[in-house]
Amino acid sequence: MIHRSMLALTAGLALLAPAELHGQRPSIATAYRSVADSLIQAATADSAAYERVGVLVDRFGHRLAGSRSLEAAIDWVLAEMKKDGLQNVRGETVSVTHWERGQESAELVRPRRQRLAMLGLGGSVATPATGITAPVLVVASFEELVRRRAEAKGKIVLFDAPFTTYGETRRYRTDGASAAARAGAVACLIRSVASESIRSPHTGRTRYDSTVARIPAAALSVEDAMLLHRMQDRGLPVVVTLRMGARQLPKARSRNVVAELVGREKPEEVVVLGGHIDSWDVGQGAMDDAGGSVAAWEAVRLMHRLG
Amino acid sequence: MIHRSMLALTAGLALLAPAELHGQRPSIATAYRSVADSLIQAATADSAAYERVGVLVDRFGHRLAGSRSLEAAIDWVLAEMKKDGLQNVRGETVSVTHWERGQESAELVRPRRQRLAMLGLGGSVATPATGITAPVLVVASFEELVRRRAEAKGKIVLFDAPFTTYGETRRYRTDGASAAARAGAVACLIRSVASESIRSPHTGRTRYDSTVARIPAAALSVEDAMLLHRMQDRGLPVVVTLRMGARQLPKARSRNVVAELVGREKPEEVVVLGGHIDSWDVGQGAMDDAGGSVAAWEAVRLMHRLG
Repeated sequence: MIHRSMLALTAGLALLAPAELHGQRPSIATAYRSVADSLIQAATADSAAYERVGVLVDRFGHRLAGSRSLEAAIDWVLAEMKKDGLQNVRGETVSVTHWERGQESAELVRPRRQRLAMLGLGGSVATPATGITAPVLVVASFEELVRRRAEAKGKIVLFDAPFTTYGETRRYRTDGASAAARAGAVACLIRSVASESIRSPHTGRTRYDSTVARIPAAALSVEDAMLLHRMQDRGLPVVVTLRMGARQLPKARSRNVVAELVGREKPEEVVVLGGHIDSWDVGQGAMDDAGGSVAAWEAVRLMHRLG
Repeated sequence: MIHRSMLALTAGLALLAPAELHGQRPSIATAYRSVADSLIQAATADSAAYERVGVLVDRFGHRLAGSRSLEAAIDWVLAEMKKDGLQNVRGETVSVTHWERGQESAELVRPRRQRLAMLGLGGSVATPATGITAPVLVVASFEELVRRRAEAKGKIVLFDAPFTTYGETRRYRTDGASAAARAGAVACLIRSVASESIRSPHTGRTRYDSTVARIPAAALSVEDAMLLHRMQDRGLPVVVTLRMGARQLPKARSRNVVAELVGREKPEEVVVLGGHIDSWDVGQGAMDDAGGSVAAWEAVRLMHRLG
């Protein structure tokens, strides 16, 4: 999700282009069928890639940019790639953003007390240490906030936008904080950008517009956002205390992992395969993107092994 | 889930037995068809019952036995039943168990630090205030624990039993703590008794066998239990710190809510409908059992309204 620490693998084109030697121009599917079949057969013959994903996520845990766990994971990947016999294995220095979540919580204090299931949005500023306690204005959309702008001042604005598609609904995550700040809100909450929840909040990066104040921003679980919305619809006063200890630290030094398989015939031409090793801090990034990284790695490892 | 604070409604049988007046013996389905149709039509004509479930869960929140929120909810139900015109509406004193969860957490400390998604099991004893830090032995079944009993002493035993059916798999929740204590364990963890999880742990009551020590017991999310199991399978030492501030308080006074619809012809015969108002503390008990309680309540309210 933060596309900084990359794993890049280059494979010489010539390795994959035997048909050109015969002056034919068969379709790509035909030309590479036997090579592709060999690779697929090797890739599905054992659980090597799956095991590597397992080690990457279980042993190192999350790999947030700037974290020690990311650097430990990169050390391991580099060492394994050397064992695989890949060429020119190296870590290329890269500067990455370094944001830390810290302690965080959200509690409903009126009309009754209840701990809310929340996650701060990536890149959010902190609240004061005592938190922000304010009435909540729930809106279902940016349009509703514009209409009710007069009610938003000094409040925590909650965007309870029903999920349509990820691409569409995540606007509230990326742009909600600044839209709320523009209306005079002191903090922003969003309903998790997810179709299902089981009270498991979903986060991701928020984006501050430089023309307005940076206010703390967090996601609530789908259920908790809907709860606050129902309370407001019933005319109940809704008050929340939001506490976030997030810190934006100076940029950190990390590494892009690069390994090569130099082509025999056209070593100056390259195909780049890759994925991002880093992940968010509240999971282990198995799908985002340990799986993608290891799939690319495994493809090149098998090309090397199959000669 | 704790079947103590009941909502009981009695309806006079004669109200529902018009066919007997004519000396016929039609099938029950035939005899009550028109009455049932009237009730169904009335029940589905508006959202009255749904709104009441909404108020019960949103306004009062959880209704754990012994809690103020349960008593506030009972007050509201009694007042509403009187407004409905039901007869002999009353709260009958009942003594209920009173267990409080307190602060709780579980943290993986080896092979790396990670907060685990946990919920203490209902009725569990506390850990010392500093928690219990111990190596974890993961087993997949009671049988495996018996086989590996020599390894369990002084450890936290985690039952990572895959879900089959609720009735079968919940044995680990009810009996796991005592089985672990019998093997010399200092605490017990179970994999949530659920087929799916999204890192949302599931709890329920545990049961202590009086012949062995009472050790703290908690559920981990499905994902976290599987993570610890994979770590053990890879030969990594797994150490967890469990902190639970649970307290078993003296029995508390609560009330069973009773309302009647006295029959015109056989007032001495009764049909009892009911559900339990109380709930666990980590949700709002909408399905368990606000919905059941209100369905029973609504049926009697509509019988009263339809005469």
